[in-house]
Parts: sequence; structure tokens; C-alpha cells
Amino acid sequence: MKKLLCGTRADWLCEVLASRMGLPLYKVTHKQFPDGESYVRVPEEVLGEDVIVIQSLIPPQNDSILELILIAEALTENGTKEITLFAPYLAYSRQDKAFLKGEPISIKALLQALSFFGITKLVTIDIHKPESLIYFKGPAKNVIPVSSLASELFKLSDNPIIVAPDKGALERARMFSEKLNTEYIQLEKKRDVHTGEISLSSTLKNLNGRDAIIVDDIISTGGTIAEATKLLKKAGARKVFVTVSHALLVSNALEKLRTSGVEEIIAANTLPPKHNIRYVDITGEVKELLKHF
Amino acid sequence: MKKLLCGTRADWLCEVLASRMGLPLYKVTHKQFPDGESYVRVPEEVLGEDVIVIQSLIPPQNDSILELILIAEALTENGTKEITLFAPYLAYSRQDKAFLKGEPISIKALLQALSFFGITKLVTIDIHKPESLIYFKGPAKNVIPVSSLASELFKLSDNPIIVAPDKGALERARMFSEKLNTEYIQLEKKRDVHTGEISLSSTLKNLNGRDAIIVDDIISTGGTIAEATKLLKKAGARKVFVTVSHALLVSNALEKLRTSGVEEIIAANTLPPKHNIRYVDITGEVKELLKHF
Repeated sequence: MKKLLCGTRADWLCEVLASRMGLPLYKVTHKQFPDGESYVRVPEEVLGEDVIVIQSLIPPQNDSILELILIAEALTENGTKEITLFAPYLAYSRQDKAFLKGEPISIKALLQALSFFGITKLVTIDIHKPESLIYFKGPAKNVIPVSSLASELFKLSDNPIIVAPDKGALERARMFSEKLNTEYIQLEKKRDVHTGEISLSSTLKNLNGRDAIIVDDIISTGGTIAEATKLLKKAGARKVFVTVSHALLVSNALEKLRTSGVEEIIAANTLPPKHNIRYVDITGEVKELLKHF
Repeated sequence: MKKLLCGTRADWLCEVLASRMGLPLYKVTHKQFPDGESYVRVPEEVLGEDVIVIQSLIPPQNDSILELILIAEALTENGTKEITLFAPYLAYSRQDKAFLKGEPISIKALLQALSFFGITKLVTIDIHKPESLIYFKGPAKNVIPVSSLASELFKLSDNPIIVAPDKGALERARMFSEKLNTEYIQLEKKRDVHTGEISLSSTLKNLNGRDAIIVDDIISTGGTIAEATKLLKKAGARKVFVTVSHALLVSNALEKLRTSGVEEIIAANTLPPKHNIRYVDITGEVKELLKHF
């Protein structure tokens, strides 16, 4: 039977996943040396066994990645042949091409490194572009936690309209609208080539007091979603909800969103639940997959 | 001709190395994204060329490593076949074996990663154990900058005695004593198995007012060297100097050393010169090697 190993960046979801899977949980011992280097130690009980490692590549991303590599090194050095990684948040997934000549494809480097260090299977939540998974050598699954998030949204709003803030979120909007049995619309995102400023436009009909739910994969600085919220409020939306898989919420993003009129943010627990938003546990969507993958 | 590329962690020594080698210097553009991910871009002039990358794997070590990997990825993605890395400081070199079962051999993981990402040759300064370099796939050279450091020591002290604070520093002490044409001695380091406390013993004869120079590869927290200094002062040393390749000087190390009676610390410039100690430029010891390696 596979052993479940909680990495250095997954504390907040290891217990619940272990309990859902009905497996005992082993934990990586870790600390930072006084000079800043990462230290990890894998418990002897899992050495040589097939292991599922839970590690979210959260900020500080480079530490999360290095620690994962050291965990994989300790496992393979001790004879482990199969390492399944459950990485709820995959860092660098937005750097999926060289936008300018001389830039690295960072997600390629990351996924190739994981393969090189002996990770044989990968399960992740809502990677920015699922196509990037070709850089991983073994089987890889991307799970969009629409079911878990939609269950929560059901409790919050009646007959909402689903909003894709740009073309990239269109398929996601379709999935949510199907689950929630309602319509969806898409806004047009434009980026000023000189200032980098984002503007949104749409041929929005009057929302007549209906709720709107903006769906996206990630909130980073929150700029696009704040703009979308203002637009929807102007068009007569009653409450504007936002649901994402990864609520990074960098610097003043949360304040920006609240000011723009966002009622509530509903996010998967792929990142540590440190913000005052509504977190939804999504481990239920991967427990069977992890068991039989 | 090889192109010289200054990485994200080498600012303080790129210019002097470029000037010593008589080569134009190209620089990696870099920043941190708001969410904490690293961004690098390699200038177009070096793409596809044979490149010498200068990158010191300084604290925060994991960032330095990831950024180096991204630089290598950008280079190889664009057709570069030969990457020589000059890494004045190699992180993780003290984690060179599994001290406890389940620990990774971190330096193995690091060096294998560098090979995997297309770094074909490696030059480093004073790695903790040169034997670790077997984990790197291509040719690798370790340079102990005795000449540069000794030239500086000549200016500071007359007829000093060279002190190896433990057995590991013995060969280094021999090298310095040869350069400075003087004797060397070795202290015995003991670590209490319960408290972890370090004690030093020696059959020190009276130093009768001679200067002592403690030589080592690295000062991290400074514990061992502070103890050695006290012992030497007690044995009648006039001034105690310390010379190392890597003055990490974590937390209050510098204060600890000054209090113990250290007169001056003489260190190679493998790390950013941010402490109030005497830094010695050691790029002269690698310029020919890098050119013809």
C-alpha cells in the first residue's frame, strides 16, 4: 500500500486528506539551518516504499521547490521507486512560454526537475495551462475542483450569472454554469501596450439585481477581478462573488477587491488558509485518484 | 570566444572578473514577481554561444539555485551547448552525506541538478569536501584561494603560527604555512554528544606573544572559531587573525568573534562584502582557468 507523506508545505491539508483516504500520515521533519539552507528528513517508515508526497509549491516558491527536491532525493536514495506528487499549487505555471527572447520556460524547468528527481506521477489542482503538463515525464492529472467550489456557491447565491473575466476563463465558466445550472458570460480583457494597464469591456445587458460569480484559476494582485467587479456592479449586479482555485492575494489584493465591491471570495484550500476569505476543502476531489493512480 | 554572463547573485565580483579576463560582461535581467516567483532574462547577445555564468549560491540559497536553473534553462532552450559555471560559493556543500537515515545528500541533489540543466563545467572556490564534486557530471575544479589570502596576511602579521581549528582544516593549514613560510598546529575539536556543545583541546605550548592565524573554509555561526581564539589568547597569542574562504557570519557571529578576541577576519569575496571585515578579491585565481577550461 502507498504511504502518505506530508511535505514541508502542506500542513493545513495533510490531516484531512489522510483521513479522507483512510491512510496513516507520515511527516517530513524539516527546519531551516541558521545560514538559510533547508533541512529535511523523511521518516524511516516510508523509505523504500511507494510514496504519495503532499507538497504545495506555495510562496516562498523556491523554498517549496527545493525542499520537495530534497525529499525526493532522500526517498530515491533509499530505494523508493514510485513517488506520486500531490501538488495542490504548482508554482511558475504562468511562465509557460518565453514571452521575450532569452526568458526561460520556467514551468518546463520545474516539471523536468521533478521528473529528474524521481517523481513518477503528478496530481495538481487547476494548473494555469494544462498543456504545460507535457513537460512532466510520467502520468499527470489536472483537477479543476468545480464540484467542491460549486457546492459552496449553491449556499451563497440563488440564480447567479457566471462571469469569465477573460477568454482564458471561458471553459471554466461553462463548467460552473453547468454545475450551478445557470448562464455564463465573458468579458473582454485588454492590456494597454504602453502602460500595461488592464481594461475590461463587455456588451453587458442590465443584470437587474442578479448576483454575479466571477470564476478564475488564480487571484494574484487582484487587478483584473477588481475591474470586472466594478463593471458588474455598474451593470446592476446585486452581489459579486469571486471563486478561484488559488487565492494568492499578493500585497493589498484583498483590500483592492473588497473596495471594488466583492462580496465574498471562495477559494480552494490549495494555499495556507491565512486570509479572511471562505476556504473550501477540495481534497475530496483527489482522494480516489491518488489511491488508484 | 566564450561570453561572460553575470547571474542574479554575483554583482559584487562580475566587473572585476570581466576586467581581469579582458572580456565584455553581459548581465542577466532579473526581478521578483509580486507573488515571489523569480524572473530572469538572458541577453540575446549570449544566446546560442558558449557561456561562462557567474553565480554565487549565497543566502537565500534556494533563490540563488532556482535562478541559476532558470538561467541555464533559458540558455539551453536557445541553443547554448557549453555552460561553464563559476560558483564562488556552493550552497549545501556541508550536507554531503546522510548523517541520519532519511536525510538527503543535498550537495548531490544540487550538483546533479546543475548537470541536468545543461551546465557542462564547474569552477568553485573551496567546497567543503572536494570529493562531493563527483556528483557533477562534467569537469569540475575546486580552487582554494591560498595565494590571494596569504598575500593579504603577509601585510598584517610577522612570523605568525597557523592554526587548524580541527582535523578537517589540517591540509589547509599546511598550504598556508608553506605560503607564509611558517609553522602550523592543529587543535582537537570535540562535540558533546548530549548538548552538542563544542570544546577544543590542544597541547598548546606557550605562544609567547606570537600572532596566530586560524584558517578554515567557512565561518557560519562562528562557534568553533570563537572557542579556538579564546584558547589561543590564553596560550599567550598576541593577535589572533582568522582567514576563511566563505565568511557567512550568520546572526551574531561577528560579535561573538570580536568578543572572543579576534583581531581581524580576512575573507575571500565569494559572498557579498556586506560585513565590516577585510575582503580579498580572489578572481585572479580563476581567470586563466575559466578562459582555458
